[in-house]
Amino acid sequence: MKTKADAFHHTLKDIYYAEKAITKALPKMIEAASDAELKSAFEDHLKETKEHVKILQKVFATIDQPSEGEKCDAIEGLIKETEGIIDEASGEALHAALIGAAQAVEHYEIARYGTLREWAKDLKNNEAHDLLSQILDMEKATNAKLTGIAVSAA
Amino acid sequence: MKTKADAFHHTLKDIYYAEKAITKALPKMIEAASDAELKSAFEDHLKETKEHVKILQKVFATIDQPSEGEKCDAIEGLIKETEGIIDEASGEALHAALIGAAQAVEHYEIARYGTLREWAKDLKNNEAHDLLSQILDMEKATNAKLTGIAVSAA
Repeated sequence: MKTKADAFHHTLKDIYYAEKAITKALPKMIEAASDAELKSAFEDHLKETKEHVKILQKVFATIDQPSEGEKCDAIEGLIKETEGIIDEASGEALHAALIGAAQAVEHYEIARYGTLREWAKDLKNNEAHDLLSQILDMEKATNAKLTGIAVSAA
Repeated sequence: MKTKADAFHHTLKDIYYAEKAITKALPKMIEAASDAELKSAFEDHLKETKEHVKILQKVFATIDQPSEGEKCDAIEGLIKETEGIIDEASGEALHAALIGAAQAVEHYEIARYGTLREWAKDLKNNEAHDLLSQILDMEKATNAKLTGIAVSAA
């Protein structure tokens, strides 16, 4: 990686891997959620995450690159943390910690899409900027929804 | 983990481990940063991170628990990602990707402190709430500073 275009391509592969990993992790989170509202929020987010994968394929197309992921250590760690919670927690601790772990994943994505979107602008790739902004807005909305569920359970 | 108090204690140990891991990762980031402004921002953040460790010790005291960390997979993954960038990137890609990776770490911390602070409030632990709010505000300020450096380099 030498140029900002290289960094953009590399990080796009990272987040593509991450979104696919999240689609595999969410069914376990849906199963573990005991609260109907949280279960439904995770179900909605699974649908959205599958949509994000498709939007990212359009972003790859804007730079004439194939849609391919590259192992992202950060999301692996975040998912491992979530799985640890599902294994170790129960009752109100499971509910609270599961929301917390999901919000950590959302914040990771918000950081990455925020960076990618700015880089797209610098690279004068308006189409990628708009596609990434769409996903960023959805991630922020999911995070806000999770805060709402956490606060209503308090 | 069964109660919200258990979840609070567990997550406090996680973030304590994470802050200590960050104090070990930052010197490598300071060395890798070629830009004086970024280097200085990382140096300031290293000082702050050491301060966060001390503030967290006060939070442990509010729940009469010893200050001890517990391996946090998420921060391990985030730091591994940062080290990968230092190894693989150069020039403007290194500068941009290093800021991006640091912001991913900040967002992880913002998520965790946001959650911990709310739990402290639910648990009527006002002292912990105020201490965690202090750290949260500093993490948000660091994230904003990094955005400023990223945008000024664009």
